[in-house]
Amino acid sequence: AVARRPDVDALAAGVLAGDRSMLGRAITLIESRNPAHQRLSAELSLKLFPHSGKAFRIGITGVPGVGKSTFIEAFGCNLIDAGKRVAVLAVDPTSPLTGGSILGDKTRMAQLSVQENAFIRPSPSGGTLGGVTRTTRQTIVACEAAGFDVILVETVGAGQSEVAVSDMTDFFLVLMLPGAGDELQGIKKGVLEMADMLVVNKADADNEIRARQAVVHYRNALHIMQQRSPNWAPPVVMASALHNKGLDEVWAKLSEYRSKLDASGEFQEKRRKQRIKFMWATLQDRLMSDLVNHPSVKEALPTIEHDLHDGRLTVTLAVEKILGLFRG
Amino acid sequence: AVARRPDVDALAAGVLAGDRSMLGRAITLIESRNPAHQRLSAELSLKLFPHSGKAFRIGITGVPGVGKSTFIEAFGCNLIDAGKRVAVLAVDPTSPLTGGSILGDKTRMAQLSVQENAFIRPSPSGGTLGGVTRTTRQTIVACEAAGFDVILVETVGAGQSEVAVSDMTDFFLVLMLPGAGDELQGIKKGVLEMADMLVVNKADADNEIRARQAVVHYRNALHIMQQRSPNWAPPVVMASALHNKGLDEVWAKLSEYRSKLDASGEFQEKRRKQRIKFMWATLQDRLMSDLVNHPSVKEALPTIEHDLHDGRLTVTLAVEKILGLFRG
Repeated sequence: AVARRPDVDALAAGVLAGDRSMLGRAITLIESRNPAHQRLSAELSLKLFPHSGKAFRIGITGVPGVGKSTFIEAFGCNLIDAGKRVAVLAVDPTSPLTGGSILGDKTRMAQLSVQENAFIRPSPSGGTLGGVTRTTRQTIVACEAAGFDVILVETVGAGQSEVAVSDMTDFFLVLMLPGAGDELQGIKKGVLEMADMLVVNKADADNEIRARQAVVHYRNALHIMQQRSPNWAPPVVMASALHNKGLDEVWAKLSEYRSKLDASGEFQEKRRKQRIKFMWATLQDRLMSDLVNHPSVKEALPTIEHDLHDGRLTVTLAVEKILGLFRG
Repeated sequence: AVARRPDVDALAAGVLAGDRSMLGRAITLIESRNPAHQRLSAELSLKLFPHSGKAFRIGITGVPGVGKSTFIEAFGCNLIDAGKRVAVLAVDPTSPLTGGSILGDKTRMAQLSVQENAFIRPSPSGGTLGGVTRTTRQTIVACEAAGFDVILVETVGAGQSEVAVSDMTDFFLVLMLPGAGDELQGIKKGVLEMADMLVVNKADADNEIRARQAVVHYRNALHIMQQRSPNWAPPVVMASALHNKGLDEVWAKLSEYRSKLDASGEFQEKRRKQRIKFMWATLQDRLMSDLVNHPSVKEALPTIEHDLHDGRLTVTLAVEKILGLFRG
């Protein structure tokens, strides 16, 4: 829980010193919906922002059952063994209002969570996708300021959350199941279009043939899609997170991506565009939330929606009425 | 072109009398971006609204080359022969800023455009998707007030415009090419999920076997997808618009849909939900357009975006700055 009067200077100093418990408290402040805390959180973000930007931000998605937790745990432990500091965040707007999120739950990643160079943070519970997006972006900044150099942002395959994660990360990794054909149905085609790499997970003994089939299948599928970057064709690799197989290749591809796109300037340009896009999305969120929280609008909305529903009001009139109330 | 002082009462009377030239002038007023015209257009819409709602609104999409114009012309002529009055509108936010749109061009539909009971209106040129959506919705109301009982709203397969058209119509028809497999790549999977019926067009002599394959393929594909209505499983039918084959079956399915969903109350409920959704989208558009057109915001935006792009400004600060200017 947030202390009664969080001291922004102390929090910032703690985060910058790499103190994980201060980082945790900073994120709790970021996630707080208390308006006073939100002001402090904005102050904190301004202090941390100049120290952010150095990490490799990697989005990870995949349908339930694909082995996301096992993958993140094994992959994260490998990175820590190689001297990196790894933060795991989650975007899951479907998580319950109270209690921790299923995503990022520390008990799921027992080995990773005990590492000194790991930081695992469950998804903020409840809230809209817009809200979760805003806090996760600020949390990435805080983790970077605390010296984490790989940020894994996990999401469930639920509609718009992949788009949100892909808009806040440098690289979007999609985990797939072995077997070809039917699996395309489990994951939305739009998600494949966003992928910078597909990893066919669970390529274990019995599954190996089906995993190879899947690799061929997805290579063909990606081949047909339009390439988004002139410098990167999304690869399809095979892995077994359970047996720590293929994860080196996954990291090799990620490093290749980063060095190629760094060299061409695309890496930084992508982040710049993300910032502009995020600014517009935030403006839109703020305006709409000001509108629906305006006392007179709030009071009149149920009647207006009711009359519109029953055809006693046209859309044009309803809009004018609401804007009139909003502008006072 | 709009007359200097459009007389709203005369326009309304002309439209209600079913006069096509007055309808054309009314739509020109609806499409005008002149603020004075927009006020008159809102007045006009209020007068026409009580006389709208009776038509069957059908959205039609398909990749370029699928034969949309030929289909709409043949299908529209059949409906007119059966005693209906048919309006053809288009949503194409990619259309050039000046000159007519490629969609809905009368020269493309020579046979249909000479019919007294047909009304073909090209897509308003230029403008955002939000703007085109707003004017097309008001144009549907005007066409209904003028007594047209089938409204065909055509769109190219370009990203969000299908979603917009599906949100303003009762039925969403997707035209497909013969042949199975690869064609799924040409059309976004999300579009298939919105379809209330697939029509495999160009099922002509040489193509008939491939058309049959496509029908089987798409039936399987739709079967796997979740059904959106308890009363309707989207059918897949075969047609050759060029030879006027299969179009009766298309209309039979459409009529079956309407009577089934009318009986269950879903038809009206869908329209009610569309109104509520449209109200929120309009509110969002209006707020954002007020924001970007605010003189101080307009003046400061280039610098803010530039500083944000170069990392001299955080998103949080940029948002506060813009909102501060907007609120004065």
